Amino acid sequence: MAVELERTEQVRSKIHIKNPLLRNALSEFFGTFMLLFIGIGIVMQFILSNEKLNTWININLGWGLAIAFCVYLCSKTSGGHFNPAVSIAFLTLGKLPLKDFLVYCVVQTIGAALGSLAAFGLYYGICDHYCSNNKFILDQVNKFAGAYRTIIGSKATAACFCSFPAFHVSNTTCFFDQFAGTAILVLFVCVIIDKRNGIPAAAHPLLFGLVVMMIGTAYGMNLGYPINPARDLGPRIVTFFIYGSGVFSYHSYYFWIPVIAPLFGAVAGAWSYTFFVGAHIPEQRETTYVLVDEANQPLKLA
Amino acid sequence: MAVELERTEQVRSKIHIKNPLLRNALSEFFGTFMLLFIGIGIVMQFILSNEKLNTWININLGWGLAIAFCVYLCSKTSGGHFNPAVSIAFLTLGKLPLKDFLVYCVVQTIGAALGSLAAFGLYYGICDHYCSNNKFILDQVNKFAGAYRTIIGSKATAACFCSFPAFHVSNTTCFFDQFAGTAILVLFVCVIIDKRNGIPAAAHPLLFGLVVMMIGTAYGMNLGYPINPARDLGPRIVTFFIYGSGVFSYHSYYFWIPVIAPLFGAVAGAWSYTFFVGAHIPEQRETTYVLVDEANQPLKLA
Amino acid sequence: MAVELERTEQVRSKIHIKNPLLRNALSEFFGTFMLLFIGIGIVMQFILSNEKLNTWININLGWGLAIAFCVYLCSKTSGGHFNPAVSIAFLTLGKLPLKDFLVYCVVQTIGAALGSLAAFGLYYGICDHYCSNNKFILDQVNKFAGAYRTIIGSKATAACFCSFPAFHVSNTTCFFDQFAGTAILVLFVCVIIDKRNGIPAAAHPLLFGLVVMMIGTAYGMNLGYPINPARDLGPRIVTFFIYGSGVFSYHSYYFWIPVIAPLFGAVAGAWSYTFFVGAHIPEQRETTYVLVDEANQPLKLA
Amino acid sequence: MAVELERTEQVRSKIHIKNPLLRNALSEFFGTFMLLFIGIGIVMQFILSNEKLNTWININLGWGLAIAFCVYLCSKTSGGHFNPAVSIAFLTLGKLPLKDFLVYCVVQTIGAALGSLAAFGLYYGICDHYCSNNKFILDQVNKFAGAYRTIIGSKATAACFCSFPAFHVSNTTCFFDQFAGTAILVLFVCVIIDKRNGIPAAAHPLLFGLVVMMIGTAYGMNLGYPINPARDLGPRIVTFFIYGSGVFSYHSYYFWIPVIAPLFGAVAGAWSYTFFVGAHIPEQRETTYVLVDEANQPLKLA
Repeated sequence: MAVELERTEQVRSKIHIKNPLLRNALSEFFGTFMLLFIGIGIVMQFILSNEKLNTWININLGWGLAIAFCVYLCSKTSGGHFNPAVSIAFLTLGKLPLKDFLVYCVVQTIGAALGSLAAFGLYYGICDHYCSNNKFILDQVNKFAGAYRTIIGSKATAACFCSFPAFHVSNTTCFFDQFAGTAILVLFVCVIIDKRNGIPAAAHPLLFGLVVMMIGTAYGMNLGYPINPARDLGPRIVTFFIYGSGVFSYHSYYFWIPVIAPLFGAVAGAWSYTFFVGAHIPEQRETTYVLVDEANQPLKLA
Repeated sequence: MAVELERTEQVRSKIHIKNPLLRNALSEFFGTFMLLFIGIGIVMQFILSNEKLNTWININLGWGLAIAFCVYLCSKTSGGHFNPAVSIAFLTLGKLPLKDFLVYCVVQTIGAALGSLAAFGLYYGICDHYCSNNKFILDQVNKFAGAYRTIIGSKATAACFCSFPAFHVSNTTCFFDQFAGTAILVLFVCVIIDKRNGIPAAAHPLLFGLVVMMIGTAYGMNLGYPINPARDLGPRIVTFFIYGSGVFSYHSYYFWIPVIAPLFGAVAGAWSYTFFVGAHIPEQRETTYVLVDEANQPLKLA
Repeated sequence: MAVELERTEQVRSKIHIKNPLLRNALSEFFGTFMLLFIGIGIVMQFILSNEKLNTWININLGWGLAIAFCVYLCSKTSGGHFNPAVSIAFLTLGKLPLKDFLVYCVVQTIGAALGSLAAFGLYYGICDHYCSNNKFILDQVNKFAGAYRTIIGSKATAACFCSFPAFHVSNTTCFFDQFAGTAILVLFVCVIIDKRNGIPAAAHPLLFGLVVMMIGTAYGMNLGYPINPARDLGPRIVTFFIYGSGVFSYHSYYFWIPVIAPLFGAVAGAWSYTFFVGAHIPEQRETTYVLVDEANQPLKLA
Repeated sequence: MAVELERTEQVRSKIHIKNPLLRNALSEFFGTFMLLFIGIGIVMQFILSNEKLNTWININLGWGLAIAFCVYLCSKTSGGHFNPAVSIAFLTLGKLPLKDFLVYCVVQTIGAALGSLAAFGLYYGICDHYCSNNKFILDQVNKFAGAYRTIIGSKATAACFCSFPAFHVSNTTCFFDQFAGTAILVLFVCVIIDKRNGIPAAAHPLLFGLVVMMIGTAYGMNLGYPINPARDLGPRIVTFFIYGSGVFSYHSYYFWIPVIAPLFGAVAGAWSYTFFVGAHIPEQRETTYVLVDEANQPLKLA
């Protein structure tokens, strides 16, 4: 009764990676690549269409779904963090070893950088068309690359890749914005995965996506809710080669804020759930099925 | 075979609150805080971006998801009311003791006030930038605080916190608007939680959120669908310290309407479900699994 | 071990209606009332805010959710048709007796009329404010009621209640638009409820709502997708008392098209599912659970 | 104990098609017809209302739901591909025979053509009204049909049917856009249907729809995300009879790109899932239910 294996099963038997860290690192890399490939495409469709094709609701919907499906992609390997802030929260909760955390941070950032580069490739033509009028305008901020691609100005395109706050938003506000946004994200991630809340595992990735959708309607105005060090730093490294060193010096070296603040926010969010609610959920009796006889007495079998 | 407990379980064993009222009050406080922290952020992103970043659909989506996830947060402790109107409906249905109801009302209102304050903190910079032109305009309504923050006018910001009806909407209309909106909310809450309707518990919070989304597309034009005394009064108390006493005297002391009308509406909504539909659902036979022998006869075990 | 019944159970024991037709008619009346109360509110929020508060996406979302929750409301009594076209499809499928169908049509239309009247009450003030400029314009179409409420013109409000096609949309197009829209609706309703498709019952109402959402993005441009004789005729009767007989004579007595065309479309949609797909779904083996002994042989109990 | 069969069951017993390929081909034809009938309606409502009724978010929502429900329609017969790219991916995965693949391609393209024709019929009046001003403008591109229906220009309508890239989007970009978009689609389709990911079958069609929604927010700007050879070629054949041969020669015979590129993208997407993640998912122990005695020892029955 030999049954021929499906082709994917044949491939699986040949290339299956058994080392958990290697397998999970590959998943985190590929998942973050896909997340940013899709996500940067969403932001570009917003900016490069002059906010006419995508509006803010498409940003919310698109990023939410991108989170959801990329987590589905890796739900049975690494779990789908794609975000050093989520990973550090799991580190403090005792669910992720330190070594894994460090590896995750690196591959997430590389994946994010490459994903944004791929998106740039697909929209290279429209991007050039969008800012072609800039070619004749001298831009002092950008001395490194083609002067028509700029960080600020009416046809600026650097914000397609990562966050650049407006001048009237202080770096202190930026810090608390990223702290709070990531805290909300990780708080609700912990709600969703807490087994005591009884939410089926197959729904978790979709709910994570809806959480990010929600955050984008509430705290997207200051910075555009990166709430993810890899998502912001990875593409920023790419922009260095396009827009020059201004991407780091901009706004008093703002760039480190979306890298550091989410780490603190994630830990605060994760533990505030435990302290305020999670630790106090009453124990549920486990449901037991008992076979009964006609007098409703428990059966003694055998 | 001792197994080391997860870190959250260790914390749980130390801080677990056993007193149900204390536990639930903490949940209601924290949940309402989170709901308003997110929800006021959503409204501010709508108003302070001149309705360009968030449009009305983002308000609907965001508030719906905020309700959904905050209820998930507290679904296994207090159940997640965050709304004295929902609590009074459960009081009349015999599902909440009077003492608990009174405690809930207080902590919900405090949570709402603090949540709106936290949101104001994160958008303080943008709020100032938004109404900075007002600094040079004398505003008669607001004598208490910095005159550039106003309740009415083209750059008014008080509506970020709570409802201020337009002049052509009478207080009578306001009353019925809040009565009807809350009645719709609680009617469908009762539909969702009625076990006879067979909706899985894990889906309840999401469906509550969708109900609020729906209400926002239908009855948001008069007042912006507060339909929750704590959500309106809590932030209004905060606005007293920012905009002065005008927040209470505005529109012939309108402020008490979104506090009182939802209470009546909620009770009407809850019981109209029972009277029109719930009481008439036919009994379903309970499904019984029976072990049968080969002749399809019930087995007699043991 | 007597247990005190919940209050709703006590009420239930006193008022429980056992007659199925009476019970279902009450549900259809109340459900259609709620559907139109919410739905007309949605349309009014679209028109009376000059399409600035609600845009078309809010119409789609809101009506979809209104359908979903009103069907949840009545899912265990009448099933939640609220639409003579759905009822006639079930009549031809042999799932609804003729007598019930006729009763449903009447109570659905009355419920729709009263629901739209309730919505008008809540937005009476804004409606007057919206068209107050019309008071000084002579309107020849409307001779019956206050001349500032009109069927056509830039501040027309009759379309808040029911459909009035533009002049360049012929009545023939209207017929096929309503035929097709209702056919799509009922086709997918039949897909969803077909047990062979294995969709859990608790998800059916939500999916019905999503179907209506979809139709609104595809075939809302000709007439605004009434696709429901009760939803169009009921409120139209109300408009007779507000806008005069023009609501019936408009566009060569168009009014009968959204009453008749959906009935044909519904039957066509229902049966096209059976003919093209439903009748050809292969039989699934039923899953049987068998107790086995250690040798994997079926156990013989007792 | 004879029970009268439901009417649909009676019909089923008479017309049931047992040949799997015939049954599946009928499903693929009808499903693709419905998908395009709805989908082209969505695009027309976007273009012919000057992007005022439908905006981009309605396109995303509508097409996503159209995919979801058309797949539900055929989920138990052909599975609901409606897309030669999806079919070729399944061919390479060993899940679809070559003969079936070829038949699917043909019936999908015919279904798509007829579906777009039906949508054109319903919006014929509005389409004429939309471009009636064009009647007086000489259009060099279009020599075959009524000169007021054009492929390019401010009142062009050919884009209602299929994709026509802007001049600043090169054909190379078009190729990679279609390659990438379809790769994303099929990658996530493979994630969703992989049993190791544990997503319930009843949710698959809805999730497919959400994937398409997501793609539309990210990669809709170059071409409008056809990502489906049948969806683009079928309606293009229809446009040949309306707009002339320009629909094929436009943009250096662009038309073959959305026919060919998705086929390569789909295969790349399907296998990249296997290589990066799918092949490395660790095996789960199967859950086994064991009856135990009071000492928690496995029972020996009989």
